[in-house]
Amino acid sequence: MSAPQLAIGFDADDTLWHNENLFAAMHARFGALLARYHDAATVERELLATELRNIEPYGYGVKSFTLSAIETAIHLSGGKIPADEIQHLIDLGRDMLIHPVELLEGVASTLAALASAGTCRLLVITKGDLRDQQSKLDRSGLGGHFHHVEIVAEKNPGVFAALLRRHAIAPENFLMVGNSLKSDILPVLALGGAAVHVPYHLLWTHEHTDEVPAADGRFYELKTFHELPAVIREWQNR
Amino acid sequence: MSAPQLAIGFDADDTLWHNENLFAAMHARFGALLARYHDAATVERELLATELRNIEPYGYGVKSFTLSAIETAIHLSGGKIPADEIQHLIDLGRDMLIHPVELLEGVASTLAALASAGTCRLLVITKGDLRDQQSKLDRSGLGGHFHHVEIVAEKNPGVFAALLRRHAIAPENFLMVGNSLKSDILPVLALGGAAVHVPYHLLWTHEHTDEVPAADGRFYELKTFHELPAVIREWQNR
Repeated sequence: MSAPQLAIGFDADDTLWHNENLFAAMHARFGALLARYHDAATVERELLATELRNIEPYGYGVKSFTLSAIETAIHLSGGKIPADEIQHLIDLGRDMLIHPVELLEGVASTLAALASAGTCRLLVITKGDLRDQQSKLDRSGLGGHFHHVEIVAEKNPGVFAALLRRHAIAPENFLMVGNSLKSDILPVLALGGAAVHVPYHLLWTHEHTDEVPAADGRFYELKTFHELPAVIREWQNR
Repeated sequence: MSAPQLAIGFDADDTLWHNENLFAAMHARFGALLARYHDAATVERELLATELRNIEPYGYGVKSFTLSAIETAIHLSGGKIPADEIQHLIDLGRDMLIHPVELLEGVASTLAALASAGTCRLLVITKGDLRDQQSKLDRSGLGGHFHHVEIVAEKNPGVFAALLRRHAIAPENFLMVGNSLKSDILPVLALGGAAVHVPYHLLWTHEHTDEVPAADGRFYELKTFHELPAVIREWQNR
């Protein structure tokens, strides 16, 4: 009997590299830009509401965010926002797209070790904008460690199931690593896979969930990537 | 010896359904909006230049186009374009994203027949925005005919080679159907595959090429989808 074909999936934004901190900085700048029209809480609430309403037509990512920010600025200023400030929002969005990719602690060394060990297939499974996610992976220098990169429009049990089928990975041989309980952990546990939660210090409202993963031996929670190899060994030796 | 695993790839926009006509309509509306600042030719030239410059950071698709249109409007109006007209551009872009998908002639019947024949794997291979392309495929009603849907950030020989490797398709067993010589035909011929060109009556400037595919028996040119089954039979019986 040949060894089981184990596979590990990694979320990208806020799991492999910093991301939400850039959006948080954009929200702060946006609040400052609109401070003469509304208080900070109103601006933040309206921007978030526009972002969530636009997920359906636009999907995730920086371009979607930029369009939502422009729309919110026009709405909250009663149409008085000048064109050069709208151009400023476009420029800030484009800056986010070319911002250097900052890896999270322990990611580079841990992935290099996992890739050279060669005992598991390594995949990136991320949602968001196709071009932006591929560009970040290229700039991260991590691309060579992965067997496959899957950029999906949404993460839910159906999407994960289709993806595992396509790569001929049995759920019991699959471990997902990510920062979002809602997107990375709960859907994979629901399919019978294992999951490792590595929280990031910021979480976008849309990713929030009150659901708590069942602790049946397939769920792990870590503080940093450095602890990952020990968890993977434990999972491999179940 | 088992039969070769033949596969046919289909481009989506302007191959399976109308697309460029929506962009052409947007260009016309954009020209009308900016007519009080510049003549139509200048507006069109500037918009195209902005679109092409923004492919690198933004990629393809409606959101990218909308951001380029806003940026061009601000630039060409010398910052005088009012916010409600910028909102109008955002609304027009969102309309494009939910516009009904209009299939091209012969597509529905031909794909249904190919799928029920079951002699070839059928794939969609399209570039563009992840969310938008998936949404269009869902709305097209064609989704059930395809074994795989691949949405890529760019189409070139490297991307096609990786994709064929991943699906274990030998280039000599692969036929690509599309409207763009540059994106769909030339890269696949270069890899040793076969390709069917079904031109659409509009072609985005960026897709233009002067290169002519070599006529070595692996290249076919059709007027409509109705002629496709005959070409596929010819290809299968090479």
